[in-house]
This record gives sequence, C-alpha cells and structure tokens, in this order.
Amino acid sequence: MSDKKNILLLFDRPQEPAFMPKGDQKKAFAVPPEYLSEKYKPIGNQVTSRFGEEASERIPVSRITPPPLGEILELPRDSNFSLFIPKHRRLAGRLIDIFLGVRNVDDLLSVAVYARDRVNAYLFNYALSVALLHRADTQDLDVPSIIHSFPDKYLDSKVFAKAREDATVVPEGSRLPIEVPKDYTASDLEAEHRLAYFREDIGLNLHHWHWHLVYPFEAARSIVAKDRRGELFYYMHQQVIARYNFERLSNGMKRVTRFLDWDAPIDEAYFPKLDSLVASRAWPARVSNQRLQNVNREADGIKLDVDDMKRWRDRIYDAIQSGMARDRSGRQIPLTENEGIDILGNMVESSILSVDRDFYGDLHNTGHILISYIHDPDHRHLESFSTIGDSATAMRDPIFYRWHAFIDDLFQRFKGTLPRYSENQLNNPGVTVQSVNVDVQGGQQNVLQTFWQQSDVDLSRGMDFQPRGSVFVRFTHLQHRAFTYKINVQSNQPREGTCRIFLAPKTDERGNPWLLRDQRLMFIELDKFKVVLKQGQNTITRNSIDSSVTIPFERTYRDLDTSRPQGGEQLSQFNFCGCGWPDNLLIPKGTPEGLPCQLFVMISNIEGDRINQDASGQCNDADSYCGIKDKLYPDRRSMGYPFDRVPRDGVDTLEQFLTSNMRVQDVSIQFQNRTFKPRN
Amino acid sequence: MSDKKNILLLFDRPQEPAFMPKGDQKKAFAVPPEYLSEKYKPIGNQVTSRFGEEASERIPVSRITPPPLGEILELPRDSNFSLFIPKHRRLAGRLIDIFLGVRNVDDLLSVAVYARDRVNAYLFNYALSVALLHRADTQDLDVPSIIHSFPDKYLDSKVFAKAREDATVVPEGSRLPIEVPKDYTASDLEAEHRLAYFREDIGLNLHHWHWHLVYPFEAARSIVAKDRRGELFYYMHQQVIARYNFERLSNGMKRVTRFLDWDAPIDEAYFPKLDSLVASRAWPARVSNQRLQNVNREADGIKLDVDDMKRWRDRIYDAIQSGMARDRSGRQIPLTENEGIDILGNMVESSILSVDRDFYGDLHNTGHILISYIHDPDHRHLESFSTIGDSATAMRDPIFYRWHAFIDDLFQRFKGTLPRYSENQLNNPGVTVQSVNVDVQGGQQNVLQTFWQQSDVDLSRGMDFQPRGSVFVRFTHLQHRAFTYKINVQSNQPREGTCRIFLAPKTDERGNPWLLRDQRLMFIELDKFKVVLKQGQNTITRNSIDSSVTIPFERTYRDLDTSRPQGGEQLSQFNFCGCGWPDNLLIPKGTPEGLPCQLFVMISNIEGDRINQDASGQCNDADSYCGIKDKLYPDRRSMGYPFDRVPRDGVDTLEQFLTSNMRVQDVSIQFQNRTFKPRN
Repeated sequence: MSDKKNILLLFDRPQEPAFMPKGDQKKAFAVPPEYLSEKYKPIGNQVTSRFGEEASERIPVSRITPPPLGEILELPRDSNFSLFIPKHRRLAGRLIDIFLGVRNVDDLLSVAVYARDRVNAYLFNYALSVALLHRADTQDLDVPSIIHSFPDKYLDSKVFAKAREDATVVPEGSRLPIEVPKDYTASDLEAEHRLAYFREDIGLNLHHWHWHLVYPFEAARSIVAKDRRGELFYYMHQQVIARYNFERLSNGMKRVTRFLDWDAPIDEAYFPKLDSLVASRAWPARVSNQRLQNVNREADGIKLDVDDMKRWRDRIYDAIQSGMARDRSGRQIPLTENEGIDILGNMVESSILSVDRDFYGDLHNTGHILISYIHDPDHRHLESFSTIGDSATAMRDPIFYRWHAFIDDLFQRFKGTLPRYSENQLNNPGVTVQSVNVDVQGGQQNVLQTFWQQSDVDLSRGMDFQPRGSVFVRFTHLQHRAFTYKINVQSNQPREGTCRIFLAPKTDERGNPWLLRDQRLMFIELDKFKVVLKQGQNTITRNSIDSSVTIPFERTYRDLDTSRPQGGEQLSQFNFCGCGWPDNLLIPKGTPEGLPCQLFVMISNIEGDRINQDASGQCNDADSYCGIKDKLYPDRRSMGYPFDRVPRDGVDTLEQFLTSNMRVQDVSIQFQNRTFKPRN
Repeated sequence: MSDKKNILLLFDRPQEPAFMPKGDQKKAFAVPPEYLSEKYKPIGNQVTSRFGEEASERIPVSRITPPPLGEILELPRDSNFSLFIPKHRRLAGRLIDIFLGVRNVDDLLSVAVYARDRVNAYLFNYALSVALLHRADTQDLDVPSIIHSFPDKYLDSKVFAKAREDATVVPEGSRLPIEVPKDYTASDLEAEHRLAYFREDIGLNLHHWHWHLVYPFEAARSIVAKDRRGELFYYMHQQVIARYNFERLSNGMKRVTRFLDWDAPIDEAYFPKLDSLVASRAWPARVSNQRLQNVNREADGIKLDVDDMKRWRDRIYDAIQSGMARDRSGRQIPLTENEGIDILGNMVESSILSVDRDFYGDLHNTGHILISYIHDPDHRHLESFSTIGDSATAMRDPIFYRWHAFIDDLFQRFKGTLPRYSENQLNNPGVTVQSVNVDVQGGQQNVLQTFWQQSDVDLSRGMDFQPRGSVFVRFTHLQHRAFTYKINVQSNQPREGTCRIFLAPKTDERGNPWLLRDQRLMFIELDKFKVVLKQGQNTITRNSIDSSVTIPFERTYRDLDTSRPQGGEQLSQFNFCGCGWPDNLLIPKGTPEGLPCQLFVMISNIEGDRINQDASGQCNDADSYCGIKDKLYPDRRSMGYPFDRVPRDGVDTLEQFLTSNMRVQDVSIQFQNRTFKPRN
C-alpha cells in the first residue's frame, strides 16, 4: 500500500501524464500499461521507463479494473469547465460518484490515475477535491489550493511565457521573481479600472471560488443543505457589494449601478488578459455595449431566454411583496421574519433547495450564464464562456458587481418588508460601550493605513511540460497595517456577549452625511467574536489579524508543503479553510488625505446570539462569511445584524440608532501610494 | 570570419537568447558578455557556458561597439508589431538603417546578435529580413519563411500546447503530426464560416504578407517606387475579391457586400483563436455589431477620425469623377487612361507615392487600422490590434473582404470612366482560337476537380523554450487535381502572342446568365504566358502548376534547409519568391454537382503586350499578382486586361465580347468532399 498522501501528487502539473515525475521529490506513478491513455499506449514502454528512471521513487498503482468513464469523456480534455453549466455539473457528479464509490484509498488512487489522463483537467481537479473532502478515509488529506494547479486562472497571461523562459534558461538559484504589473488589464482611461486592484485580487477570487466550492447550489442534498446556506449566499454577496462600494467611494466613484435593464447595452467592458492553459485559449473579452442575448448552446446543454429571467424576477418580486412563496405542489410557503431570507436565497441563487425551481427559475446563475456568453450566445463561434461564467474568475469583471447589486437589491426589498428591530432587540441592558479606539501598528490612533504590498507565489506546480524548479511570480496587492481594537465596556454583571464590529464611510458620494437607511448597506463587517465581560470596567483588545471574516494571507496562498494548518484532523478541512475574505482586503483602500469613516462597535445580548454547539477546531476563523464546516452558523441573529433591516421609525441617522451597548468612533483610512517589497 | 549563413540562425526560435543552440546542428552564438541583455548579464558565465557545452559549434561574434538602439527599444519585447502602425514603421526603419549601415557581414552578425535579444522579436525579424534583402553582400542568403519563426500567426492556438507536450514527452521518432481541425474558428451556424477554409488558408495569408513585404507603402523611395505598384495594389486586391466571390458562389452565398456605411454596426464577427506567442496574448476577437470608432491611441501614435476617412473618400471620388487629382502644390494631375489607375492605387492605399497624402489621406490603411481597434479605440483596455491590423493575419477576418470590396468598387468607378476597349484593342488579326479544353489528371475533360488535402508543416523552429526536434502540424486545405490546358490556335503567320486565361462562374447567385459588365468582375486570372505561334495550326499545352499567378505548394511552406530554389544568385530572392497565390487555391472550391464556369482564353497581340526587358531568372513565376523583382511589370496592358474595363457599347454578354482570338469553353468545378492524407 502506498503512502496515502501520494494521491495529492495527482494535483501537480495537471496536464502532464501521471507517469512523469511529480512534486519536489520527483515521484512518478507506476502506471500500468493498460491504464495509459490512447496517445501513450503505443509508446508506453519507452515513456514509462524513461520517466521512471528520472523519478526518485515509483508509486505503485494497483491494477484494478477501472470503471467505464462513459459520458465524463464527453467534455474534451482541452475545454474549459464551469459549475454554472448544467452538463459540466452532471459530468463532475458522475466522476465524484466513482471516486466516492471505491473501497479504499488504494483503489481510489488507481481509479484516479486511470481517470486523470483521460478526463478534462479542471473537471478532474474539482471531482477529486470534492471526493477527498467527503470520503471518510481521506479526511486527513490536505488538498492543495487551486492556484497551484491552475495559476492561469489568477495571473496575467504574460507571466507564463516568462516563467517558461526562466525555467529553461536560468539556473534555479538565480531566478528572480517575475513581476506582474499592477495595471495590466486596463488603464485609467477606463474609469472602472480604478477598482481593478480589488476585482483582480488573487485572494478575493480564491475566496469566491472556495465559497462556491463549499456551498454548491447543486449536488447531493446532504452536501447542499448546509445550515442557512441561502441566507449566507445573500449575506456574503451583500458584503461583497458593500465592500466594493466602499472601494468605489475610496476612489472617488459613485456606488455601483444595478444592472436592471437587461435589453440595454452594457457600457463597461472587460478584457481579462487571462489564458486558459488547459483549453489553450484566452478567456473571451466582453467589449463595450453588448446586450444580453438568448442563449442556445447545444454542446453545453443550455437554452435560456432573457424573457425567462424576467418572468422569474417578477415571480420572485411577487413572493417578496406577498410574503408568500409557493412550492412545487402549490402550497404557500411564508417568508418568515427569520427564515424567509434563507428561503429567498435558495430561490434566487438558485440552489436545489429552492421551493420551486421551475416556477422561480434560476435567476442569479442564469445572469452569470447569459452574461458569460454575450459574445457567442449560440456557440456559432465555438467560444467558451467569459470570466463571469466561472466562480474562480467571475469577480474580475465589473459587470459581476452590477449584477450582484441587482441581486442584493432584491434581497433588500425583502428585508424592507420585515419588522424593524426594536430598541429591545438591539440593546443589551447593563452593558455600555464607553469608548472604542484603534491602535495602528506604527501609526496614529484611529487612522487606518493602507498601501501596496508585493508578494510572491510559486507557479511551478501548475506549469506543465517545462523544466522543474520553483518559478515565483511577484504581484502587487492592497495591504493595511495591522491594528488593534481597544474597546472599553462597562457591565453591571459578569456576562458573555458578542462583539460586532462594522465600518462604513462617513459620508456619501457628495460628501453629505448619510441617512442610516442608506448607510446601513455600506457597513462592512470587520469582526465578530464572543466576549466575556466581568462586572465593571472591561477593556477588550482584539487584533485585526484575528478577524472573523478573513483568513490569513499565508493560507490564501498556501503551498502544498508549507504553511499548512498544523495538527492532525484539521488537515482535512483545507478546502473549507480556504474560504475566507483575504486578509489583505480587510480594510478598503481609503484616500491619500484619509477617508472619513465610522467604526461601529456593538456588544449584543448573548441570549439572542448563542448557538449551542462546540464550534472549536480549525477553520472557524472566517465564519462570518463562510460558516463552519459541518456545524451550524455560529450566530443565531440574522446575518448582517444589526444593519440587515431598515432602521426603526424615528431613526434617520446612525447616531439616533445607537443604544448604550453600541458606540461609533470616527476613524479614517489613509492610503499611502507606495509599494512595499515582499516581506520575506 | 564565420560562415555567412549563420546569420540566418538568428531567425530560429526568435525568443530564445542567441547563446542557446540554434538550428538542426545546434550551433550557438558565442555572445560577448557585454552583448548580453540586462536579464542575462548577471548570470552570463553560467548560461553561456552551460548552453555553449550543449552546442555542436560556437559561432564567433566579433566584438564591435554596438550602435545605440535608442527609441527602437520603445516597442516592448512582449508587444505585437504591425507595419500599419506609423510608429512601428518608424522603429523598423531605424533598425533597418542600422543593419544596412554596417561595413560587412561580420559586423552585421555582431550588431544583429546584439539587437536580437533586446528588441521586439517581430520587429527584429522584419528589419533583418529587409536588410538581408537589400544589402549587396547578403544577396546570396535565403531568408526563411515567416511561418517558421512565427507559426502562431497562422495556426490554431491549441496546437502549441500539444506541440509542447509532444516535444517534452514523446521521443522524436514516435511523434505523430498534430492535427488542426478544419473548422476551429467557428461552426456552420455562422454563415460566413463557410469561407473559413479560404480566409484562413495558410498559403493565402503568407502570400498577403509577402505581397506587402515586397510592396511596402512606406519606406525609402527607392524601395517603394516599384513599377506600377499602385496599379498592382488595385489589381492584386481586385483579384482577391473576385476569387472570394467565386468561392462564395461555390458555397451558395451571394457576393460580398461592400462596407459602405461606416456608422452602422458590422454584423459579421470573427474570433481568430490565434495566440501571439511573442505578446503572450490572444489576438483580439471582433464581436458582432460593433461600430467603427475614432481611434486615439497615444502609445501607438495614432489619432484618426472616422470623419477623416469620409473626407478622404469624397475627395477621391471627386478626383475620379473629374479625371483630375491635385498634388501638394495644387497642380492638376490627370488620371490618364493607362497611368491613372497607378496614381489612384497609390492615393487610395495610400503609399508615399500618393500625389497628396494630406489631401487624399490614407484611406485603405486607415480602414484596416480603425477596424483593427474597434474593440479598444482609445487603448483604455491596453488591447492590441486585431487580425486585420497585420498583413500576416488580415485575410482571416470576413470584414477584410467587405472593406476591400469597397476599395475595389472605388477603383471600378474609375475604370468605368475610361474609354471601352474597341474591337481593335482586343483582337489579334490573323489569330483564331479554335478550341480550348482542359485535361484533368485522372478525371473527365473540362471538369476541374477539387477536394480537401492534408499537409504537414514543422513547427519546431518557432517554438521557444522547449526541447528540440521536429514537431509537425497537420492542417487541411483546399486542393485541386493538376490539369492541362489544350488550346488550338490558327495563325496566318509566325508570331508571338500572350495567352491570357481567366475563369468565371457561368451564372450569378440566382442562376441567371451574367451581363458581362458584372461578370467581368468575377473573372479570376488563371494564367498568362507568352506563346510562339507558327503559321497554321498550333496546339498550346500548358500545365496548371506553371500558372503565372501561383507559386508551388513547396515554396509556400518551404523550410530553411529544404525545397529552397536551386541555383546561386536566385537564392537572394526568396522573400520576393514567397509572394504568389498559393497553388492549392488556384481553383475555387466549386460544388459537389459541379459549378458551371466559363473558361476564357485569349491570345492577345504581342505589340500591345510586350515589355522590352530580360525577365529571365527565378521568382518570375507568380508575376501576374507580384511582378518581378527589380524589373518592370512584364505586361504592358492594363492589369486585368481585357476585363478591367466596362465592355464596349452593344456588348452585353461574354459571347458578344469575343473576337476571333478569344474563346470560351464551358467547364465545371466539381468538389469532392473527401480529405486526402498527406502525399509524402
């Protein structure tokens, strides 16, 4: 029996045949002759012995009769793959079933080796990841981040030729990191490009990919039906829009315009400048002034009309307005105060949990699909989907935010129908937040600091058919100085509570103070954590790095062999752990003169917050946007509380909203337009 | 002193540094340390000794002080390059001047080695090609075809990853050719795709590239001012449109629609699916329904309005209508019966020979530029030009033909103002063509046969940074069976004459017989050659392979070391020799049931034809479309004679047009929808 971890080597250099040496130790799989793909069968002896000799070790592969792959092979090897496409989901499901169905890890290795060089590499990666995540006997395996297998989904296409040059010509010790320019997709002539640093942030896109990996909208019901997944769909994306708008205000731009008129041309273009190395095609661009088209693509099994979307939208509005949805059998399903948003989330996305997927359709996903095929709606040009059609790349395109601003507005319509929070639902008698301050590392109090940071990532595991050895890419991303909240709280008795920290710009685009009904949508969650208060004076200290929305930078970019979460059982959870807002984007960019903001802190009443479960373990550190694996969402309140609803009557401003367990501190975000070299 | 031919190795693997082994014999240049690019200076010893050891031979490079490259370096290494862009032309001119200015071949080698790894690879290739073509001491060098250096301009992008796999994994003897699917850019849902086999034909695009290389519109006057170059611009492109329309009729499509309304959306899209390996970017697509925009791209030094084009067009129409152009000093230049078309050609294209480039502008070139930037007119998205912006790729896009149909119509307006040919200008007293027949190899008389043919081309010289050894690509192109004209001619005395052979469809799109004023524009030239007639009965036999419009297949795809033109001094002429319609497209596709055509044969009066020059030598075998290097165009008649003008009064049909020295034979073109394997 071979070391179980060897199976992870199948993620390495995804297009190189399994008989070629893999990983730093150059192990090669001893592929049985009958497992070789048709291409290599005729020269099997030659290649397996040649590469076997180069290998440090040959990993035995047991010769079981491999299962027929059938229609899984219908997706060509050199094709793109997206879970938005029903046919792709179905094929992935088949392969997952095969991987879940084998008896033990040895057989899994055999079947995976057999499948790997036959099926599409993206599909293989996805199916094997899901299988390892769900098989009982592979819970201790730690699936590598997708960026290591497919760096081409995250990096300027120009990088790869340079990497190839370096790998071929420059001795490993002498290689310098290849710099990706910060502005490679557009120039400042394009207003929307000012946000490219956010949209194209690698960590942001990895977060989004992981989120949808953890919360698939279609799979076995046991996988989909996670606690409050519909509500989390709403909330995570609501926060994306709030954060995007915050960045827009930081850049002197107005909030994003909802994409409402689906017959109108779309002004903002996007040229991703990404290649798909598996498909050997560039990702299609979306040029200016295209209009949504009805999509009819036989090869992808997709036939969708723009009018379908309009009907679904109107039915969903009807449900919101009436407070009642209907299910497949025509039964009325009330959209209740607390659970309604979850029902609506599943209906809008939609997931298989939708109360009636025929009637309410597949609104959000269809938007992604229609936009992603806007350049070739009937497949006449044999073009694949554009970036918005793949959760790994969707957040790069400005239209993503216009689409989700529409989706979010729909949820907000529903939130607008709910009872407002009363003072009693907000306050926490006996608890007074007396002061809040932020100590910024090496800086002034209450002045958050942002800047450009360069970091390096190793490409080499994703670069097929080139010489070995690390090749680093150096990219530039937003970063902030670490900071610490200092919160003084008076309590009249010992108690627990939940500390909720949000941040919003202090004024709107015109510099006017906000009405809270608008500002509430601008609040981004910075942190949420349990506090234990003693009677009397308490000082709560909390470091920014511990935020409940983020995962640390090292985990975002984590390598197969380094910076893995320590410890035994937790290793299983990586693909869950990979979900989390990237720490480097915790704080929006701000402005050189300092963007005035309001930091909101609340200690909420634990009685309304508490979930009775043991939530200890790893990978619960980004639970605000990602939940916790196999656990309930660790906060009983509606997500976004206390800003998820319209403020109570008589409350027009944030000041008026405050109860004594809340406090607002003016802070500012100062952006320093300087680029710092990597911090090795 | 090193072997002069070594300089040709600089065309090999254009992005690999000069110190890496080149060519089949793996020779490496002994690059002096101070010549290394900044990237490699710090590790110069390591890399030069490592690759020097791998080399079979080190080519000495003399250490002269290299000239400053100055602004030539402003074009980034990883950028596209096009002669349509004024700035690129200027930079190329600088480098050509440097290459022309050095004393001897040894110094040229040194300077070229120095420049090669610093300047843009496309620019370097072009400048060195031109220099070798024009230096007296390099007339015996034979520049390799551009497809060997830059196969990515001619082949499906998917090929290159497969080639990399094969070069890395498959032993050289076991490599199978990589097949490019015949239909990779679109499907038959797109009506225009039916013509893809023509537009994407490799030989066609190589011809176009060579034509513009031989007839640049801007360079030293001595290079541009070739005999009748303006007229040849008109005629070569007129024939392209005639041939394209012939193909369209073969495919049940109507003639191409002129692109006239420059404010209207362009219906036909084109997705080239080509990568630029130098720029590491895909060639931009042109999606449906885009409109021309004013172009303002500082980086390219281009600022052009659509309205400029309209003014130029209208001024050119004014000149045509009045029969008078004006030059820079305001002088009237008559557009004479025989020379007017040459003046007009230079004015429309435009070349530096234009009588007033400020007033008449740069109509044809600007059309290429504006269309090529339709997706990013102000460079906000940092996108390069699309395929129509480079003469190596322009003919792939359907809009090329709509644009040139407009350009051609403009020339035809002028032709419409000229006196009609009288019978005396057409006939050849004493000469009677009695019969014409076509003997088709292995087929029926007068039934031309077309089919699909596969051929292989070796990619390996253009594949940077991968293991050595040939990697062949197998592509599918139109082909026809070889055939022979048999022409019986009666002459009343011994004489010379020019045999002119044209072919046109017999009916229009509706199956109606043509009016000659329309059909004349459909005639494609098949051959033109001098005949020597004896008194009495003559039988002229002529093989299709000897056509004066084509070059043989082998020359189109010719390799550095094989199938070069034989003989000493002729070697110099390759880049001229590379110009010529590809033999495989001599005959349009026809139809499975046989497309009825009319074969027109004329023996014209030598007195009106003859040019007194010695036109012997190589590379005069495609003179109809390409002329002859350093010689006069070898036919005194207006190009396209006798079909270049509106028929004389009273002549409505081809039959009525005929004088006794002409004859029409009904033939048909039968297309066999079968694909033949390569004919090794």
